[in-house]
Amino acid sequence: MGWRARLHAKIESRLVQRFIIVVIILNGVVLGLETEPRAVALFGGVLETLDRICLGIFVVEIGLAMVAGGLRFFRDPWRVFDFIVVGIALIPAAGAFSVLRSLRVLRVLRLVSAAPQMRSIVRALLSAIPGLSSICLLLMLVFYVAAVVATNLFATSFPEWFGTIGASMYTLFQVMTLESWSMGIVRPVLEVYPYAWLFFIPFIMTMTFTMLNLFIAVIVNAIQTQSESVQEEQIVKIEEITHQSESCLHTDIAGLRGEIRELKELLGRRDPG
Amino acid sequence: MGWRARLHAKIESRLVQRFIIVVIILNGVVLGLETEPRAVALFGGVLETLDRICLGIFVVEIGLAMVAGGLRFFRDPWRVFDFIVVGIALIPAAGAFSVLRSLRVLRVLRLVSAAPQMRSIVRALLSAIPGLSSICLLLMLVFYVAAVVATNLFATSFPEWFGTIGASMYTLFQVMTLESWSMGIVRPVLEVYPYAWLFFIPFIMTMTFTMLNLFIAVIVNAIQTQSESVQEEQIVKIEEITHQSESCLHTDIAGLRGEIRELKELLGRRDPG
Amino acid sequence: MGWRARLHAKIESRLVQRFIIVVIILNGVVLGLETEPRAVALFGGVLETLDRICLGIFVVEIGLAMVAGGLRFFRDPWRVFDFIVVGIALIPAAGAFSVLRSLRVLRVLRLVSAAPQMRSIVRALLSAIPGLSSICLLLMLVFYVAAVVATNLFATSFPEWFGTIGASMYTLFQVMTLESWSMGIVRPVLEVYPYAWLFFIPFIMTMTFTMLNLFIAVIVNAIQTQSESVQEEQIVKIEEITHQSESCLHTDIAGLRGEIRELKELLGRRDPG
Amino acid sequence: MGWRARLHAKIESRLVQRFIIVVIILNGVVLGLETEPRAVALFGGVLETLDRICLGIFVVEIGLAMVAGGLRFFRDPWRVFDFIVVGIALIPAAGAFSVLRSLRVLRVLRLVSAAPQMRSIVRALLSAIPGLSSICLLLMLVFYVAAVVATNLFATSFPEWFGTIGASMYTLFQVMTLESWSMGIVRPVLEVYPYAWLFFIPFIMTMTFTMLNLFIAVIVNAIQTQSESVQEEQIVKIEEITHQSESCLHTDIAGLRGEIRELKELLGRRDPG
Repeated sequence: MGWRARLHAKIESRLVQRFIIVVIILNGVVLGLETEPRAVALFGGVLETLDRICLGIFVVEIGLAMVAGGLRFFRDPWRVFDFIVVGIALIPAAGAFSVLRSLRVLRVLRLVSAAPQMRSIVRALLSAIPGLSSICLLLMLVFYVAAVVATNLFATSFPEWFGTIGASMYTLFQVMTLESWSMGIVRPVLEVYPYAWLFFIPFIMTMTFTMLNLFIAVIVNAIQTQSESVQEEQIVKIEEITHQSESCLHTDIAGLRGEIRELKELLGRRDPG
Repeated sequence: MGWRARLHAKIESRLVQRFIIVVIILNGVVLGLETEPRAVALFGGVLETLDRICLGIFVVEIGLAMVAGGLRFFRDPWRVFDFIVVGIALIPAAGAFSVLRSLRVLRVLRLVSAAPQMRSIVRALLSAIPGLSSICLLLMLVFYVAAVVATNLFATSFPEWFGTIGASMYTLFQVMTLESWSMGIVRPVLEVYPYAWLFFIPFIMTMTFTMLNLFIAVIVNAIQTQSESVQEEQIVKIEEITHQSESCLHTDIAGLRGEIRELKELLGRRDPG
Repeated sequence: MGWRARLHAKIESRLVQRFIIVVIILNGVVLGLETEPRAVALFGGVLETLDRICLGIFVVEIGLAMVAGGLRFFRDPWRVFDFIVVGIALIPAAGAFSVLRSLRVLRVLRLVSAAPQMRSIVRALLSAIPGLSSICLLLMLVFYVAAVVATNLFATSFPEWFGTIGASMYTLFQVMTLESWSMGIVRPVLEVYPYAWLFFIPFIMTMTFTMLNLFIAVIVNAIQTQSESVQEEQIVKIEEITHQSESCLHTDIAGLRGEIRELKELLGRRDPG
Repeated sequence: MGWRARLHAKIESRLVQRFIIVVIILNGVVLGLETEPRAVALFGGVLETLDRICLGIFVVEIGLAMVAGGLRFFRDPWRVFDFIVVGIALIPAAGAFSVLRSLRVLRVLRLVSAAPQMRSIVRALLSAIPGLSSICLLLMLVFYVAAVVATNLFATSFPEWFGTIGASMYTLFQVMTLESWSMGIVRPVLEVYPYAWLFFIPFIMTMTFTMLNLFIAVIVNAIQTQSESVQEEQIVKIEEITHQSESCLHTDIAGLRGEIRELKELLGRRDPG
């Protein structure tokens, strides 16, 4: 075992991982407190220092993991995730990038990559996505077409809602979530275009029905996966039962064979010639 | 193979279909850009020309498919769909038909009929509908009755919401989606008719419960289809296991029979007459 | 077959039932048109007359069914339903009962009792209810308790929303459907009672979770019913497979027995003494 | 049986439990009427007295149960629940604790602990929670991170919605329930921060997808539990079928063995030497 493997084992050891989880939680609390003006006024300096210490620990941990793993480091998606969320804090957050300062708290999401139960939940969530890709593509296509149609139809009268494709997509997303779709959007539109319901009602129905089917696809997949394992288990049990019954009958037949052999022996003994 | 069959094979060939998909996507982008005033100001002519070229390609493709397929062309629902969404662009869009210009983008939906994965998704979505027809009929009946009752009861005080059956149906659809049902509609109605909740609360509950059951019908159908295929697979496996066990016992019994035959032979050999 | 049985058979005959369905639909259209002021202005008298004729046909049909069925008539829930929705139209709709005139359209719901497919859908919907009764009771209990608490806490400051138990129940129902719960109700309440979220957030979560479980109970019941019938079918198939295999082995053993009998005979024939 | 056991049996007897249920319902009605000013004006004293009598009965019942059960009393979670909801009424409700007076009605929830069907429903509801704990933890983590980010980004311009982490969490909970998320919150925010949709749209999608999966987890668990019992039942039936078939064949083979024995006997009898 080279020093790299030993370093890797040390970083991935339970003790170090637990320590990192504690640091993540501490960092989460610190970043939370920093949003509170009173807390900043009282212990602003302490919080800042604590945040820097946490960041330092993360940088050291990830740096050591990179040294230990070499290029393999970037093949582990969880490690890449860690690298990005910690890396954000190191970009000088000035001017146009000042928003990045707010994203420092994404570091707390490292809890997901650090706690194994969380990892498996996220993996399960993500595993549902590939099966949904073609239905999502369909949704996006219908969405794009609806946005272009809405922009063409309503842009002149309602520039705020349907002025550009982007605005139309946002508004249609809002309509799809059913938020204020009628009182907020469609009733005002209906006053100018009395037939606009011919666009919105079918849009809502199509989208809801498609979303419903997307939803159902996830449920059916989840049940299928589960039921397949149950079925396999059952087949094993049935195999067992059948084999047990077979072996019973096999013993029976072996007994018979024994008796026939005895009979043969009896005949053989009786007339030796 | 006649020239029609050869033409048909050429149009349906992978290369041509891929080319059509590219043209559809290009057309989608062009139609999207045409909604952007800045893009139109800069390359308005180019976009218009590109759109016409795309349309020309579609017209040629569908024309050739019609020539190749003859009347069979109209038996393929996907081809009829293509024919309609492309045909819309050819209607002179002037005066009352100016809205048709906005529907040109429906052409982008040809992506669904051109990409096989999309087709199968849409087929799956549509296949759920026949099983839902009677529950949908029930929903529409209850909806119609509720709209007539609401018009009779509330038309005089709330002409905007319940003035005609059409207005009532729209308002009740909004109530069914739960959008602003209380703050927007029912609370104002309650101020005039204090017992109106006796109409709206049962309406919401009935509709939600029926929709829920419609929803469940789709889930249960999907699971049933899937579980049936799993069950059939399982039966085949059980049949295999049973036959295997049977054939083992059969071999056993054949062995017995062999020994009995031997016994018989032994007896026969001993006394030849 | 007495005259009553013959009359009953005639009323329930396919021809009469189809005629009644046509009358129901006609009546539905007439009642719909009566809400349209222009239609009333043009053919008000015709519509009124048509409505009376339809009502007359229903009264005669139900009257004959009552004569034919005697007291058994009231044991058929669909007939009782018919009796009530038609009976509403016969109550003099004046003064306080003027609302009953609006309920004449409930007659159109007779389509449900007249069309067999509709009946089976409604029966399926209603069959889900008994299994949900205890969870519904729980919901209502929590609802009542929450309404009393809300009335005690907020009645003085928000008499419109929480002035009485009835008002509180209506408002909490609205909150449960998530309609304007925050912007409309809870944010204004929070301004007076800053800790009110301790009441509303747990209320929303409990209600949503319980509703979700109610929902799941319906799905699981539906799947259970379906899966049980599939399982039974499967057991029958497995029984068949097993019996077939058993009978094959039985034939095998019978063959063996035949050979042994032959052997016995051989032995018997050889030494007759 | 000591006096404690006898006392315990008496308290848990059907008669006493039914009496307690009646008292709970009566108390619920009384507490409901006390919110009605007219009812209080007419029979305020009677209601107050009835409430005290009900409370007295509960105190006596729970007191006796404590005496009978000793420390075991506190091991039964239902009894602890009873103890708390009745105990609330005994705390002097003055000053800062005046809100506790409103919580007296929680006593009515004792119906859940008193009625066995209700208990089993609540137990079923609670049993779904442990399986959801890790997904809930993930939701809360994402929620916390989103609240900190939102506070950092929007606190200065929208102090009412995003001023503190608490305010942000409340607002994000509202956004998650989709209540007025666009018209009420995000559109105003977009006017100040045009890229805020990059925060809100992914937040809504992630939360909805995760909630959906939480939801699906409950359904799949419920189906799994049910299907497992069905599968076990099926295995028992298959075992039965197989054993029945096996025993038939066993009888067959036993018959064979009998015949072989006869044969042996025949041979033995024929040549005694």
